[in-house]
Amino acid sequence: MVTAAPTLAEVSEATLLATIFPFFPGGAAVAVGPGDDAAVLATGRATVATTDSMVRGRDWLDTWSSAGDVATKLLTQNLADVAAMGATPTAVLVSLVADPQTPVAWAVDFARALGSGATKAGVVVAGGDLSSAPAGVLMVSLTALGDLGGQPPVLRSGARPGDVVAICGTLGRSAAGLLLLEAGADRAGASGASGDNGEGTPGQHGQQGLRGLCLEHHLRPTVPLAAGREAATQGATSMIDLSDGLLRDGSRIAAASGVSLALESGLLRADIEDLREVVGEQADECVLAGGEEHSLLATFRGELPSGWRQLGRVEAGHGVSLDGRPQAARGWDHFGGDQSRG
Amino acid sequence: MVTAAPTLAEVSEATLLATIFPFFPGGAAVAVGPGDDAAVLATGRATVATTDSMVRGRDWLDTWSSAGDVATKLLTQNLADVAAMGATPTAVLVSLVADPQTPVAWAVDFARALGSGATKAGVVVAGGDLSSAPAGVLMVSLTALGDLGGQPPVLRSGARPGDVVAICGTLGRSAAGLLLLEAGADRAGASGASGDNGEGTPGQHGQQGLRGLCLEHHLRPTVPLAAGREAATQGATSMIDLSDGLLRDGSRIAAASGVSLALESGLLRADIEDLREVVGEQADECVLAGGEEHSLLATFRGELPSGWRQLGRVEAGHGVSLDGRPQAARGWDHFGGDQSRG
Repeated sequence: MVTAAPTLAEVSEATLLATIFPFFPGGAAVAVGPGDDAAVLATGRATVATTDSMVRGRDWLDTWSSAGDVATKLLTQNLADVAAMGATPTAVLVSLVADPQTPVAWAVDFARALGSGATKAGVVVAGGDLSSAPAGVLMVSLTALGDLGGQPPVLRSGARPGDVVAICGTLGRSAAGLLLLEAGADRAGASGASGDNGEGTPGQHGQQGLRGLCLEHHLRPTVPLAAGREAATQGATSMIDLSDGLLRDGSRIAAASGVSLALESGLLRADIEDLREVVGEQADECVLAGGEEHSLLATFRGELPSGWRQLGRVEAGHGVSLDGRPQAARGWDHFGGDQSRG
Repeated sequence: MVTAAPTLAEVSEATLLATIFPFFPGGAAVAVGPGDDAAVLATGRATVATTDSMVRGRDWLDTWSSAGDVATKLLTQNLADVAAMGATPTAVLVSLVADPQTPVAWAVDFARALGSGATKAGVVVAGGDLSSAPAGVLMVSLTALGDLGGQPPVLRSGARPGDVVAICGTLGRSAAGLLLLEAGADRAGASGASGDNGEGTPGQHGQQGLRGLCLEHHLRPTVPLAAGREAATQGATSMIDLSDGLLRDGSRIAAASGVSLALESGLLRADIEDLREVVGEQADECVLAGGEEHSLLATFRGELPSGWRQLGRVEAGHGVSLDGRPQAARGWDHFGGDQSRG
């Protein structure tokens, strides 16, 4: 007997799966989709694979994030990792681990948005897993696969002195959006504000528009995924996606490559000035250390591909500097918390 | 400052990763392992992919299962899904979602056992994810990939009347082990009892030995993974691994293939008689409906490969029958609970 707001405990696994499978795009990449023991995917000689999870209460709050927001964010953070290897995302597998008292509607909305986002990104939803969790727990996990198209991956370790440091996508918007939410902003401010947030060039929108874009980017980020593959084709020497902030993720390229990333504040000024209208004095910190942005940071040994803008240069040394001053690799640490305040 | 029993909150993510990465086997299949944005794996033209999660309090209890047990079980249930497609498991990605108060030792023991099991199974641990969870929550998730070696996958849908229904591996041991634990058995009984549990032929061990094997199979199951690929090569027409019980998983082959699986009690008698010494009257239910066994159930149109034994025949019709009597597809449903008692 289905009530007005049924929970997962009230429907069978088969019924739930029959409801959500139609949301999941198939395509040429998937030979066998959800429903057998495992999926079968058409792959090239090298497959990129990554996995990432989101947990209610740690990675999102139900007061701010809808099921669709969570699906979009989970998809973006995984696909950005694939793109940051220089690969084209091809397929995802998804896990939902949920308290049986979770509304069926949450699971259905999550699946619908995941399917919609996957369709937009050109990836198939190849399979997944449903598991029950203790009271109050809701967790989603995604594995994303990608294809390098016969080219070598772009690692974190290939930056060399003289390379140009460049970004494709926005800086600091997710962190600014979080600050706005913490200050009581209505999440409805994010609606209807979509459009140019994939572009990421500062200075092309009013203050109200940018507030909305920051909220949007925090709640349901999208990033220019195709830029990863394109950067690889055009000779990127190293690449990473900004999960934990420009300084922390930049320091990862620096450490892996045995170099220093020398950022110039002049090249970050427009990003910071923009965000100052929205979050005041915290704009610098948002741009330098704001996490969950998922824009692509890369180094190039020649001309930048279209859509990328320079932030600095690679030099001999180690760590990340700003106008020559060494910067601590502050940003997010998953268990220890925010190390910049520790 | 590291104390005698440090928690995840007390170590940095980098420190934890540096501790656990050395446990993870690399190999020819992994071009880029853990440490970059994503892993890069050597793949064939078709890649099998599956994912499965385990949650403390739902899928295991700390009183019964060590971190190493959980790792072994998680690995087996995922690799069995890959094997059930007729593929050779090649790589896994792992996620740990944990309350920061989780002891570091749990994570380290988990990673060590995962690495050890992966090495034995010939798969690489290609990457993973660490996320923090609310108080008390501990969850692990695995994605497994496999290679079909250029052959088509063995689906659930290929069984045809006249095929032989056969099993490779044990029946009912995991469920019997759970009953023993629920009745107060000491999990230490599982230690030192390993050896022939990959074989699964009934009647070749004493009662004490079988008790230990049942405990062992429930806590840290291993299954004959290579049998999946071999069955595919030798003409299996359909295949599934026993996650949710012989009747329920059998009914999945029946439904997907549009046939009936006609099991014969005479062919199950040795399994049941064996378990009767351990769990008495519940032996029938363990063999017919016991989940988490992960043995391979398949149908063949000719001679059985070595290691497989017949359980019945495929007939026209639907569902699963035992000596001609239709059986309800009882077994485990992830949110609704055990449907056999509902």
